[in-house]
Amino acid sequence: MASRALTQTLADDPLGGTVRRTVLPNGLRILTESIPAMRSVSFGVWVGIGSRDETPALSGVSHFLEHLLFKGTKRRSALDISAQIEAVGGETNAFTAKEYTCYYARVLDADLPLAIDVVCDLVTESMLAEADVETERGVILEEIAMHDDEPGDEVHDVFTEAIYGHHPLGRQISGTVASISALSRKQIDGFYHRRYLPSTMVVAAAGNLDHAKVVREVRAAFDRAGLSDTAEPMARRSRTTRVPSRSGQIVVRSKDTEQAHLVLGCLGYPRQHDNRWAVGALNNVLGGGMSSRLFQQIREQRGLAYSVYSFTSQYSDTGLFGVYAGCAPGKVEEVLDITRDELARVAADGVTDAEVERGKGMLKGAVVLGLEDTGSRMSRLGKGELLYDELLSVDEILRRVDEVTPEMVRQAAADLLARPMSLAVIGEFDDQDFVGALD
Amino acid sequence: MASRALTQTLADDPLGGTVRRTVLPNGLRILTESIPAMRSVSFGVWVGIGSRDETPALSGVSHFLEHLLFKGTKRRSALDISAQIEAVGGETNAFTAKEYTCYYARVLDADLPLAIDVVCDLVTESMLAEADVETERGVILEEIAMHDDEPGDEVHDVFTEAIYGHHPLGRQISGTVASISALSRKQIDGFYHRRYLPSTMVVAAAGNLDHAKVVREVRAAFDRAGLSDTAEPMARRSRTTRVPSRSGQIVVRSKDTEQAHLVLGCLGYPRQHDNRWAVGALNNVLGGGMSSRLFQQIREQRGLAYSVYSFTSQYSDTGLFGVYAGCAPGKVEEVLDITRDELARVAADGVTDAEVERGKGMLKGAVVLGLEDTGSRMSRLGKGELLYDELLSVDEILRRVDEVTPEMVRQAAADLLARPMSLAVIGEFDDQDFVGALD
Repeated sequence: MASRALTQTLADDPLGGTVRRTVLPNGLRILTESIPAMRSVSFGVWVGIGSRDETPALSGVSHFLEHLLFKGTKRRSALDISAQIEAVGGETNAFTAKEYTCYYARVLDADLPLAIDVVCDLVTESMLAEADVETERGVILEEIAMHDDEPGDEVHDVFTEAIYGHHPLGRQISGTVASISALSRKQIDGFYHRRYLPSTMVVAAAGNLDHAKVVREVRAAFDRAGLSDTAEPMARRSRTTRVPSRSGQIVVRSKDTEQAHLVLGCLGYPRQHDNRWAVGALNNVLGGGMSSRLFQQIREQRGLAYSVYSFTSQYSDTGLFGVYAGCAPGKVEEVLDITRDELARVAADGVTDAEVERGKGMLKGAVVLGLEDTGSRMSRLGKGELLYDELLSVDEILRRVDEVTPEMVRQAAADLLARPMSLAVIGEFDDQDFVGALD
Repeated sequence: MASRALTQTLADDPLGGTVRRTVLPNGLRILTESIPAMRSVSFGVWVGIGSRDETPALSGVSHFLEHLLFKGTKRRSALDISAQIEAVGGETNAFTAKEYTCYYARVLDADLPLAIDVVCDLVTESMLAEADVETERGVILEEIAMHDDEPGDEVHDVFTEAIYGHHPLGRQISGTVASISALSRKQIDGFYHRRYLPSTMVVAAAGNLDHAKVVREVRAAFDRAGLSDTAEPMARRSRTTRVPSRSGQIVVRSKDTEQAHLVLGCLGYPRQHDNRWAVGALNNVLGGGMSSRLFQQIREQRGLAYSVYSFTSQYSDTGLFGVYAGCAPGKVEEVLDITRDELARVAADGVTDAEVERGKGMLKGAVVLGLEDTGSRMSRLGKGELLYDELLSVDEILRRVDEVTPEMVRQAAADLLARPMSLAVIGEFDDQDFVGALD
């Protein structure tokens, strides 16, 4: 059991964090950042399984499972789980993404042993009782319904489906009413025991902690669950499935809303693409802040929208780029025209050196300012290990951002923004209203 | 100009913050917390003016003004304001509440002088150009429309109006489409110059900073704006206007939504009420976390809702208590019955000692865990000075929470939950559907 001290600390980090990494014999990776200046600890178990690992019949099972793990273990009822953490003023929760699921707790440092015990217990020894499956099915159907009442969020799902179609990435994390209604306890339990193996998990913790003690307690918890060894360590699966290159899709979801909600965008780049820093700066220039082109053009100069921004999403083998705007239904054409003009202009002419500097400044600020609490530092460790297979130090990230040149941003713009765009719309429209909208 | 070091530091605060307070001759109060272990600084100007200070004709003017202050000063265009902060990786924004408005920036410590200059500039020397008023009117109308597409938020406004009626607290912060459409530049400018006086403002900053330097720079900014003295210092207005004691109101907003969104609640307590810690613990027990009664009853045991919680709101002379739930339209009656039964049971029988301890633990955890970033520490200073006229140390808060007894919580429950309730609903219903729902 090798414990290796990593040197990925924040240079001049006034909080003085030290990162360490240990791999247990069962394949479980444990990363901690010891930050004596903090009073809290965030502890998380990151599982490398998400909605893209589901078949159509199992759509939503990762998220359903995430809910069910809080419903009780051999040693704890659902109320025990939440009450034990809440009694000491802590919080515990979880979230499911397309390529991973995270269970976490944040507590005062003295309560870390409790947090480790509770989170490891629910991840490894959940009961998935039949009655709880039925109750939680209702909760998830309500979660889906709630999401459908938030068109500004929902339009992102419509856009993702427009781009990825029937590829697993095109499906919603929560599943559909049909798939959730049909999932059986047996299916969920099978998914749980096949997929939730120590070798697919990363434990991450940050705050006032002792690495060796965390390793000991996590190991004890996994031993108790009979997960000391992984008989058949699951091969780290490559997710380079064939991603469809759909383009020019226009999807309109007709709904009685006050605003028209739209996303215009295209396929972007995978998580580890060499140009990721240049694309990050480009995204900031286009629609990443109040000084960005789209914010200035659409909101500041014309007052057409309250919320307008661009975004990127990254997966292991693909990615997305898009622009969101919410505007009056009668202004959709104008907003769309301005957006398409601006993207075309940047594709053709690039952006100014001053804009590139600003885009880079925003990237660097987000990195440094985003690491002041233990939760974000814990996430940095978990995501870095699970999704990037490397943990860049903050200094290394800042250095790579500094290396981005205006020319690199222009090249990224010319490549990305010349791609055929797709469009998703929610509002009081029908398909006819957008025929030819992308011509 | 007295600079008085306050002793409100966090005992055992590993971050080692020190709070200082200075009052300038013009009445401006400046509070800082120096935290050398942090790399960032949050800087905010808190203005003691909000939507409850508006007449019906001026409804929304505080929020409209908040938007307009970012549109340009004598020295900076709107783009200058955002670009200068974003170029150094910082962020700046603002928010308007019913009793105050806050303008802030968060930057790396070395960039604090820039943040002070930009935020003070926009608060004190905004141009309010006629053309910008027209453009921003469009943005705010879109913000209102966006809010109307989020029924889970909107139902809180419906509830507040149900309770407060035509009292200024019953009106929406954003104003209405009619009031926003009608507001003139002259009205907004008048409100700005009458209300935004140094004596109604508090400057708050937290992070790696030097108090004397902050005071010097803020003072220079206010001097530059000709605000060295307040010729007529505005009397600290008391807000003990007569709050209507409406009760038993049922307001249904008919809308084509997936879920029914409802808030059931009543008048609560003002901000500085003696029982505030007991009510905080009570609120946690009722619906403050996953171990709370309503979460357990409605979500965990019956799967009727994804989102269900209780809340309190405090104002200077009044307050609210309520329960929110989003559920299937066909389940509204059941959710309402369970909620009313549970509230009645707690009013009659109180809660257990173990629940009180858990509710207190949650209060204390939220205080301590909520103070790890500079933004929350800056807000603690600004709100404490502006709204409470005293800044309790964290230790003092923890001590007061510890002093809460089960008997105090039972008394608060008996008083609060026996009050006549009102109900707000958004969904595919009409008034007829809820006749007698509160009998």
